[in-house]
Amino acid sequence: MQLPSSLLENAVNEFSKLPGIGKKTALRLVLHLLKQEVGAVEQFGDTIARMRREIQFCQRCFNISDANYCSICANSLRNQRQICVVENIRDVIALETTQQFSGTYHVLGGIISPLDGIGPDQLNIESLIHRVGQEGTEELIFALNPNIQGDTTIYYIQKKIKHLPCKVTTIARGIAFGGELEYADELTLGRSLANRLPVDSYISNR
Amino acid sequence: MQLPSSLLENAVNEFSKLPGIGKKTALRLVLHLLKQEVGAVEQFGDTIARMRREIQFCQRCFNISDANYCSICANSLRNQRQICVVENIRDVIALETTQQFSGTYHVLGGIISPLDGIGPDQLNIESLIHRVGQEGTEELIFALNPNIQGDTTIYYIQKKIKHLPCKVTTIARGIAFGGELEYADELTLGRSLANRLPVDSYISNR
Repeated sequence: MQLPSSLLENAVNEFSKLPGIGKKTALRLVLHLLKQEVGAVEQFGDTIARMRREIQFCQRCFNISDANYCSICANSLRNQRQICVVENIRDVIALETTQQFSGTYHVLGGIISPLDGIGPDQLNIESLIHRVGQEGTEELIFALNPNIQGDTTIYYIQKKIKHLPCKVTTIARGIAFGGELEYADELTLGRSLANRLPVDSYISNR
Repeated sequence: MQLPSSLLENAVNEFSKLPGIGKKTALRLVLHLLKQEVGAVEQFGDTIARMRREIQFCQRCFNISDANYCSICANSLRNQRQICVVENIRDVIALETTQQFSGTYHVLGGIISPLDGIGPDQLNIESLIHRVGQEGTEELIFALNPNIQGDTTIYYIQKKIKHLPCKVTTIARGIAFGGELEYADELTLGRSLANRLPVDSYISNR
């Protein structure tokens, strides 16, 4: 693709560094910005740069934050003795959207994956274990993706805190709402049969 | 979607103003930028804002340019008496990528479309007619999309310059390479039969 201007080319190159955005999409986005007011585009650039420069990570749970502690950790109405362990910030946002959880989070920043060279030391695991010991945590809820790396991470952390009087749970695995039994894999179907629920609790939870 | 930081939220809102980018994609892009170096993200913002602030439009053909005249108009090796009329800058880029055209362009900035309230006065048509009269243009090649608006625009411009000794052509309509006859619409198939080519010229052009 031959572009008629180096300013345009630089802007297209910057956009095409973003995940899932190729040269053609980048060009479409840049040409869209070209049609906007100068002020609006400058605000776009400033907002992005300012976000990266000023954003902080909560010192306690490593969630994204505007201050030293995130709005969830700073909220005294939330159960500070319940910690939900997640892989990344996107998972926090997904769980918060359900409005079903009133405890706090701990963002690991990844999961243990030896094949990708990610061990416990690269993740926020030490701080989690420290937190559970210091804060008198009553329940640790693992909300990790159901795969080998997720299970390894749960196993590793559980072993490290088994001397502490803290209940350890994991979110339920089963057939998703809207899913179909005949297309479910055996593992999911088997587990969802083994962990069957009384119908009463199922209906009241819906 | 509840976001834990207003800085993050502002950045997501800016991204989701772009065409084809929803809130979820915007969040993915912003979280990607969050993992990059501060300097790299500041450069991203600066490059976009600078592009919008400093980019110019060629005074002659309205193509995007770093200077008063675009690199195509300023290139004396190109045939300055041949003008290819296109709707927008994307079309210039598409045609330049073919490397089959050595003349100049004229970017209309849209096409005549009364239903969308776009008349000849909102487009760079006056300047095109002026150019054809002043520059002794030998050929005007219309490369507009084959639809009613495109045809209306061709008809309007052609009427305005019919007193000038300038050849007027349009790019060929026909079955695209890789296309299939049985799925072609009647109009395209009919025109491509009417405008059939000697096999010799077809093979030498491939």
